[in-house]
Parts: sequence; C-alpha cells; structure tokens
Amino acid sequence: MTNLAELGEFGLIKHLTKNIEIKNSSTVKGIGDDAAVLNFENKHIVVTTDILAEGVHFDLSYTPLKHLGYKAVIVNLSDIYAMNASPKQITVTIAVSNRFTLEALEELYEGIKSACKIYNVDLVGGDTSSSYTGLIISITAIGEADKEELVYRSGAKPNDLICVSGDLGGAYAGLKVLQREHEVFKSNPNIQPELTGYDYILERQLKPEARADVIKMLKELNIKPTSMIDISDGLSSEILHICEESGCGSRIYDEKIPVADNTKKLAEETLIVPTTFAMNGGEDYELLFTISQNEYEKIKNNPYISIIGHITEQSKGNFLVLSDGSEVEITAQGWNHNK
Amino acid sequence: MTNLAELGEFGLIKHLTKNIEIKNSSTVKGIGDDAAVLNFENKHIVVTTDILAEGVHFDLSYTPLKHLGYKAVIVNLSDIYAMNASPKQITVTIAVSNRFTLEALEELYEGIKSACKIYNVDLVGGDTSSSYTGLIISITAIGEADKEELVYRSGAKPNDLICVSGDLGGAYAGLKVLQREHEVFKSNPNIQPELTGYDYILERQLKPEARADVIKMLKELNIKPTSMIDISDGLSSEILHICEESGCGSRIYDEKIPVADNTKKLAEETLIVPTTFAMNGGEDYELLFTISQNEYEKIKNNPYISIIGHITEQSKGNFLVLSDGSEVEITAQGWNHNK
Repeated sequence: MTNLAELGEFGLIKHLTKNIEIKNSSTVKGIGDDAAVLNFENKHIVVTTDILAEGVHFDLSYTPLKHLGYKAVIVNLSDIYAMNASPKQITVTIAVSNRFTLEALEELYEGIKSACKIYNVDLVGGDTSSSYTGLIISITAIGEADKEELVYRSGAKPNDLICVSGDLGGAYAGLKVLQREHEVFKSNPNIQPELTGYDYILERQLKPEARADVIKMLKELNIKPTSMIDISDGLSSEILHICEESGCGSRIYDEKIPVADNTKKLAEETLIVPTTFAMNGGEDYELLFTISQNEYEKIKNNPYISIIGHITEQSKGNFLVLSDGSEVEITAQGWNHNK
Repeated sequence: MTNLAELGEFGLIKHLTKNIEIKNSSTVKGIGDDAAVLNFENKHIVVTTDILAEGVHFDLSYTPLKHLGYKAVIVNLSDIYAMNASPKQITVTIAVSNRFTLEALEELYEGIKSACKIYNVDLVGGDTSSSYTGLIISITAIGEADKEELVYRSGAKPNDLICVSGDLGGAYAGLKVLQREHEVFKSNPNIQPELTGYDYILERQLKPEARADVIKMLKELNIKPTSMIDISDGLSSEILHICEESGCGSRIYDEKIPVADNTKKLAEETLIVPTTFAMNGGEDYELLFTISQNEYEKIKNNPYISIIGHITEQSKGNFLVLSDGSEVEITAQGWNHNK
C-alpha cells in the first residue's frame, strides 16, 4: 500500500487523473492549467455543486469507495438533469486524511471515472488537500441547454399534474438495511450480514443513477415540464420547494406514490409506513416535475412516470391525501443524512 | 450565539445568502434552484476550484474568519486571472463542525461577500454540510474570455522574458510572524503578540489580493503574455510548471527577484535567505508570466512588473543564477502549507 505523503499533492493529482479522456467538444482544455477552458457557443450553462462528508453523508464501514465516487458524481449530474440540461463537465475536489492509501483513492476515482464514462461527462479539474479527519468530496458539475429548454422550480401553475419518475423511498430503505446489519456486525463480528433479498434497495442506496433517460424520454414525447427538481431530500421537502418557488399549493395522493416491493418489504419489517420512506427519506435522485394537464394523454400509461397529484392555488396549502380521503399537511422534515 | 443545529441546512444557506445582489449580465439565475444558470454568449469560459482546510491551509487561532472568507475567494479568482480571463461567478461549499456558531459563519460570509463586491463577482450557488471536525471551504470560480485572449501555461518560447508582478515571499514571511507569536502566546498567554512593524507581510498572508490590476494593465499596454500562472506554491514550483508545459528551460536571476523590505527584515530575523521565501514560500498570488522580447520596451520601467529571467531551450534545464554567477538547479520544493 502506498502512503499519500510519499506522493505529495501534485503527484497525487497527476496519478489520479492520468489518462483522462476528453469526449465533449465543449471541453477546450481539461486538467493541467490554472483553470479548465470550456466553450458552449450559444448555449446557456448550468452549474451546481454538492459536497459529501464522511460520517455525515456516508459511512465507509459499509460504503465501498468505488460506489462512493460514483455516487458523488451522480448527485451532481442529477441536479443538472433537473434543470432539463445535459451535464458536460465536472471538477472534483477531495480532502483526505493520511489514513487513506493511494490504492483507496484509486478506488474512489475509479467510481468517479466510471460515472463520467457512463454519463459522457469530462473530468476537467479539481483540487486535493489533506484533512485532519475523514474524507470529504466536493464536486461541481457544469451542463448546457438551450435557453428555451431550461426548466426551473418556479414554473408550476394551479391544475398542473405532479409527476415523479421511478419509485421512491428505496435508497432510504437500503440505508436502513445497511445500518441494521452493521449494528449486528458490531455486536458480533462473526455473524455474516444478511443482505440477500434486499438487492434492489441496496443498489438504490449504494449506486444510484441520475435520470438522463427520463429527460431524454420527455424530449421525445415533446413534453417540457412547467417545473422540475430532483429528489435528494425526500418528496415532502422537494414538493415544498417547487410550491414555494412557484407560489402554489399541492395535493399528493398517498396511494399514487410509487414504492417498490423491496422497499415495502423493509418498511413492514421495520414497522414504518412506506409513505414515510418516500416522503421523508432521501437520496432517490428521481425527478419530481409538473406538467400541464394538456400533456396527460402523452404520459398516462408511461411505465416510468407516475402522476401523484396536482398543483393548487397557494392558499390551499400543501397536503398529502390518504386513501380514506383525510389530509395530512406536508412539512419539510427534510432528511437527516444517515441518521 | 446561535447554534447551527437549530437552523438546519436550508435555513443556514438561506440566512447566509440572503440579499445577494447579482451584478453580471452573464448570471441568468443565481442561488435558489437545482443549479445556477449562466449565459456567456460567444465567450469561452474558464472554471477553477480550490479547497482550504482547517489545520492544513489555515489556523483559526490567528486567522480571522472574515479574512479567511476573503482569501478563499481570492485564491480562486487568482487562477482565473492567470488564464487572462475575467472572473464572473463563484459557488461556495462549506463543511463545518458544530463548534462554529451562526455568527462565526456570518463573519466568514462577510469576507466572501466583500471579495465578491470588490472583484465584481456573483455568488451563484453552493452547498453546506456539517463536518465531524473543523472547517473546510471549497470554492469554484467561473470566468470568461474571448478565445484569442486566453493565456495557457504552455506558450513560453526560448528567449521570452520571465516577468513577475509585485513582490514575492511576503505571504510566507507573514505566516512565520503569526506562527512565532502564536508559540509565544501558547507558552505565556499574558504576553501580547508583537505584530507591529510587520503590517505589510501580515496583510500579504491574511488578506491577499488577486492581480486584476495587472491583467488590466497588460491589456492597456497591448501585451499578451506567451504563458502565465499564478504564484500560489512559490516561484520554483510555478516556473517549473510553465517550463514543463511549454517544453522549455529557464534562468532566473536571484538579484532580480522582487522582495519587499518588510520580508527581508523577517528573513534576517529568522536567519533565512529572502530568496528562499520567494522560491519556496507560497500564497503570494502574484502573476508569473512570459513575454516576447519584442515587448521589452513597453515594460522595462514598469513599477508593477519585474523582469527576473528568460526562457531557454529545454535541454538547458532550470537554474537560479546567483550574484556571483554560480547556478543552482531549481527543484519543486513546493510548499507544505502552514508547515
């Protein structure tokens, strides 16, 4: 194993970023100067940044470094897609303590590069630093869109349909499994973790994907959402962001919220209502968006999209409608990472 | 004092970024959506990112938070200027432990906003996270330039003149004063730190500036450097970067390196040769650039620029020429932050 101190900062960056291939024509110059140079011609560009901190956003006792690198990229790309834009470049900054070896960081970068390859994104810059404690990863993603393609959080209107891609609550359910088995392991290291049968939710937690496919599909269907956001902090928090920015209210129907069987199974075991996972869990990286009712026919039987409610006047507030017709006010419970 | 946990992540971001004013026409949408939206029309854009970690890049026992915030922006803007571009936007990401209060972060952001105001840059996004230890600040800066204005590290040619703005070694000398007085304070907290007479080098360390003025002046003089880099890690390291990227060698003349009197004073006290501060110190954020000999007349008496050497063929290597004519090979001692 190679000690990081032996390499030095420049050596480390060089080693981790060697053989980086540039794929996008908008990347004029990648790593190797004071700054990367990009050229988007007449496109608008979108920029987002997200940080993942050890002990806060991830626990290395059950998160493989390669998966972590992959996920750190995905959470940023998801924000770019949520603007209805295409991600093109990322910069990666890490602060890392000496307890990590070069080989560990290679694993991390393998995940980062793998996400870049799959999503056709160029790694164009970054910085590394030592840290006195754990690992911190801060990524900035840059994407492009034509001006008229951009979708903000602020465009929802009363009577618009509220839609969500994929299913919700799975990533949080996966985290619960990992935490449960980790507790068992800590009390008796001879017991093998019981992870079989939870494949789907474990993958949702450890290797999430950004919904590039949904953005592409909406374009093919000729649907431009009136507002959009990615679900990183749970459905409650995200619908409130859209409604606050759009000056609207909302009704979401409990029975319409898509929850996978694997998620329901874990919910039953832990005596938690699946809706709680969907509303207050997080890290699903699905897209929450609103569309005009005129688009209903285009989307009604789409297997990748669920219509879960509608936008109202702001004065009507934000409520979850249960199957008996009763309503529960939606509050931003947010999502306390990993806790 | 307000505890950070009371506010929550969204509350914290909202509080710290309220009343942010957008000044650049290229900023279409700042904070408040999944990503910022920018429009540079036909310009090329440049992107850079730098991280500052507590205990590695700064010590809060002698670094005021407001200065730290200011400096964290400056180090990024300096990279943008080193591309001969104009900074326009930044995103700010912080990871912070619970020992910080809201008031402390307000101080930090006051410094960040102050730098934005002075350099006419928009704060357009970011992220905050808790951390299990100290404070980490990661900033990404975005700037613009016409394609033909951009200056890379790779354009230096044999016989080009090597120039540097301002003076060197001051920031490192300032750090030495702060560290010395901190040691005295630790051994006897009743002794007041002796900082008078070191104003210039303390300011170089605590409140550096990015050389926007030099970039502007070069444009007015109609000089486009053949290569350029900012001096963040000491002159040795930076000249080697330029020569490596340009496939050249260099000669730098010891007696031509600009060192301020205040820096020389501290060098004498600590029995270190001032050149060592300039070559191996860091954080001066001056610009190191090369120009064609044809430009010599335009720059020879310029008070802001020193001509310190010339570029050679690569086979001649990189050497510092001392006043007795002897030569010392330049090696990348880099600069071990704060150590």
